[in-house]
Amino acid sequence: MSDALSAWTGFTQKNALARFLDINLRGAGQVIFQNNPLTGLFFLAAIIWGAIASGQIDIAIGAVVALVVATVTAMLLNVDQTSLEQGMFGFNGVLVGVAVPTLLADGAAMWFILLVGAAVSTVVMLAVSKIMKTWEAPALTFPFVLTSWFLVLGAYSFGHLPIASMGPAALPHALDTAGAESALNVTELFLAWLKGPAQVFLINNPVSGVLVLVGLLVSSAWAAGLAAVGAAVALAVSLALGASLAAVTAGLYGFSPVLTAVGLGCVFYAPSPRVLVFALLGTVFTVLVQGAMNAGVAPLGIPTFTAPFVFVTWLFLLPKADLKPHPHGLMQGGLFKKSP
Amino acid sequence: MSDALSAWTGFTQKNALARFLDINLRGAGQVIFQNNPLTGLFFLAAIIWGAIASGQIDIAIGAVVALVVATVTAMLLNVDQTSLEQGMFGFNGVLVGVAVPTLLADGAAMWFILLVGAAVSTVVMLAVSKIMKTWEAPALTFPFVLTSWFLVLGAYSFGHLPIASMGPAALPHALDTAGAESALNVTELFLAWLKGPAQVFLINNPVSGVLVLVGLLVSSAWAAGLAAVGAAVALAVSLALGASLAAVTAGLYGFSPVLTAVGLGCVFYAPSPRVLVFALLGTVFTVLVQGAMNAGVAPLGIPTFTAPFVFVTWLFLLPKADLKPHPHGLMQGGLFKKSP
Amino acid sequence: MSDALSAWTGFTQKNALARFLDINLRGAGQVIFQNNPLTGLFFLAAIIWGAIASGQIDIAIGAVVALVVATVTAMLLNVDQTSLEQGMFGFNGVLVGVAVPTLLADGAAMWFILLVGAAVSTVVMLAVSKIMKTWEAPALTFPFVLTSWFLVLGAYSFGHLPIASMGPAALPHALDTAGAESALNVTELFLAWLKGPAQVFLINNPVSGVLVLVGLLVSSAWAAGLAAVGAAVALAVSLALGASLAAVTAGLYGFSPVLTAVGLGCVFYAPSPRVLVFALLGTVFTVLVQGAMNAGVAPLGIPTFTAPFVFVTWLFLLPKADLKPHPHGLMQGGLFKKSP
Repeated sequence: MSDALSAWTGFTQKNALARFLDINLRGAGQVIFQNNPLTGLFFLAAIIWGAIASGQIDIAIGAVVALVVATVTAMLLNVDQTSLEQGMFGFNGVLVGVAVPTLLADGAAMWFILLVGAAVSTVVMLAVSKIMKTWEAPALTFPFVLTSWFLVLGAYSFGHLPIASMGPAALPHALDTAGAESALNVTELFLAWLKGPAQVFLINNPVSGVLVLVGLLVSSAWAAGLAAVGAAVALAVSLALGASLAAVTAGLYGFSPVLTAVGLGCVFYAPSPRVLVFALLGTVFTVLVQGAMNAGVAPLGIPTFTAPFVFVTWLFLLPKADLKPHPHGLMQGGLFKKSP
Repeated sequence: MSDALSAWTGFTQKNALARFLDINLRGAGQVIFQNNPLTGLFFLAAIIWGAIASGQIDIAIGAVVALVVATVTAMLLNVDQTSLEQGMFGFNGVLVGVAVPTLLADGAAMWFILLVGAAVSTVVMLAVSKIMKTWEAPALTFPFVLTSWFLVLGAYSFGHLPIASMGPAALPHALDTAGAESALNVTELFLAWLKGPAQVFLINNPVSGVLVLVGLLVSSAWAAGLAAVGAAVALAVSLALGASLAAVTAGLYGFSPVLTAVGLGCVFYAPSPRVLVFALLGTVFTVLVQGAMNAGVAPLGIPTFTAPFVFVTWLFLLPKADLKPHPHGLMQGGLFKKSP
Repeated sequence: MSDALSAWTGFTQKNALARFLDINLRGAGQVIFQNNPLTGLFFLAAIIWGAIASGQIDIAIGAVVALVVATVTAMLLNVDQTSLEQGMFGFNGVLVGVAVPTLLADGAAMWFILLVGAAVSTVVMLAVSKIMKTWEAPALTFPFVLTSWFLVLGAYSFGHLPIASMGPAALPHALDTAGAESALNVTELFLAWLKGPAQVFLINNPVSGVLVLVGLLVSSAWAAGLAAVGAAVALAVSLALGASLAAVTAGLYGFSPVLTAVGLGCVFYAPSPRVLVFALLGTVFTVLVQGAMNAGVAPLGIPTFTAPFVFVTWLFLLPKADLKPHPHGLMQGGLFKKSP
């Protein structure tokens, strides 16, 4: 595998088209932090399989088109070359390209906002990266989340953007699910578990989940293992707390914890017993935040996307290297002085 | 014109009252980024004309009073003298002073919160400026947006602050406007276009729109041109996407794109073909964000104010000079170490 | 009193258990900025008194358990030792420990999220501190607010987390309270005033309010005086604006202004006539923001917690030492250049 990868990398140095393909594949791979074109190929396969299986080929087209548009936009903006070649400007685009056709109905207006959104996702990536670098932290998938929220929420204001599967907007209300989880048998649990990794790409399909896990495995055993464990922890915690069975079995409590587990457990910290306990706390908290945000976005009739992962992972990465808060004492220099 | 301006500037050096007037007029001008007292005079005229035409003289009084209170607050806080003299502490105040009497009914409680809000707008301007300067970016009109949201949202909690024109709070729901835009004739389109610049000041009046454009023209042909084009782009995109005709014809899809077009096209970047394409992308995206935020604030029963402009312009300004995101790799120094 | 405190401090140097107790008591005291174990003891007494008086002993247990868990988590993460010993990692935990059992019904799931939340509150404290230190500002109680929002909002998604007293979610609607405030007699006003300081700890009990004020007095006369004045200002402004009498008499308009008054008036700025006027403006604005946020969180069916205090105090602290905004002029270096 790694021989083939070396050969491929050598080839991309000579062939501009291969190099462009490589950048885009790495962009897909970076959705779960992997700078690896083969991983990206598996991830795209997971999207395409899910799109075909559900009869929504526009999702597969949207993903590829948005990935390319986001990457080309980055080239036009003369971004950092190393970051570009690692696929750092593709992963938000590909997710925008999946989200828009999944939630909104096919049509000219849908493709128009998909193209605008894919280009804008690169601008937002630059903006969020600039802010987060202040604290040595990554943008994560927040550019995708923010851009997609703006795109799909507009469907409630624009008559030519009919909604396919989203909403309706509703006030949150208490759920009575006591005892319902006993209804799940082992097969259902297994399929729900596989759908966690698949839903990172908004795909509700267990085969896609296998493709995602295999795609991780060809790049990093730690990443694949932590993704699998993260999905299992999410399944256990969400069932124990009595989450909606429909949401749990569709993998909708799994995708953010998968990302948190991989990100905290082996990407931004090197795996160790201490780090794994820390990542476990973050993964469990991500399940709680997923439940909270499901209620939080309900009055707007939009999905959370990967925001629970983003917020929790930021909170768990930011403390690094600065463990001293501002004391509860005087600010330096008193109230506004006369300017000199 | 520029001779008269020079004479006026010379006069303000000798006369303290003229100087104070000059600062306040520049404050009004800075609503659309113009450090020019004549522009400010036109903008105030636009507000006053609109207020009189709709029989709401309290809006004109509120604008002037809040402008002065915000400026005086800045003086009392010993802010940077150059920024003060450029009117940087007036533009949020004047907008607060228009927003409160437009949305809430006249009365002692309304004037109380208007005065508090005008003073606070200067504090918020300082706070937001401090944060945004970390990334060499301006506060834009976010101090106005944030302060006014806090002021008018409170009307739902305080019985002595009756609402004049705002809300009611409602969940967003899909709109069916297909085909309705064909109903607009050329005159209606022309008036809707003029109301875009007017609604920057929350004024629903085409004559005020002319005054705003002329006010820009006396200061900068680029600014006037980009405002006109921005309003036209917003009209075209919002109609093409099937936005509410009532909102479009009132200029409510135009004011934020006007500000984005001017800000990105000629204020914060120097106009060039490359910059204009970038500004166009930002202007189109502002229309999408306006639609999204209209749905987003609906459950709270408040307007978006200029938040779509602020968020998009920040996203399009922040990338400057730092085009390298944090990689998806290890943080420096591992997990929390023992403090030394 | 100060002799006893010195003796205690000396004892904590020799006895590890006493030292741990001291850290936790200071953690409770830091809820209102006091690095003082006796103050913390009074604050815990206020919580316990209120819990027993309302027959909810789980609130008292939750407060103590969460305080200890948050402190121990800080120790395990090797945080800055001085900050730890000042109780900077306890105050958010103790508030999480009060909030969860107050709003959610007793049960295994409630205790599970309380423990997770208490540990996470320390991580969030580190994260928020890191961000706010960029501008030399403190985290305030935002870690408590954010963590608790995530915990209790999830109750709408998790069937095993029944709600005890929160919500229901509702759209904001205009209030008609004109004239109702005349119904309050002097005793009712007095009790409402005392409940302001008590509600800092989510306790609806006037005796607890006395304990809080006395706890402040043993540490700082300024803090006690400003808390008392802040509660009185909040009472006057909220009644004058026609706020809900039920909310006013429960102290729900008082707790955030109390914190703002103490924080701005004597903790982060040294008291002076100039500072006190500034703190008064902040305190009055906090009442307006409390009203706004009550409406703002209504569609989610959650409380504001101390967010009004946090947002206003940040806005009033941030301007310090940087009173020059970015001008409305060109960004440095034009649009994205070719990277070198």
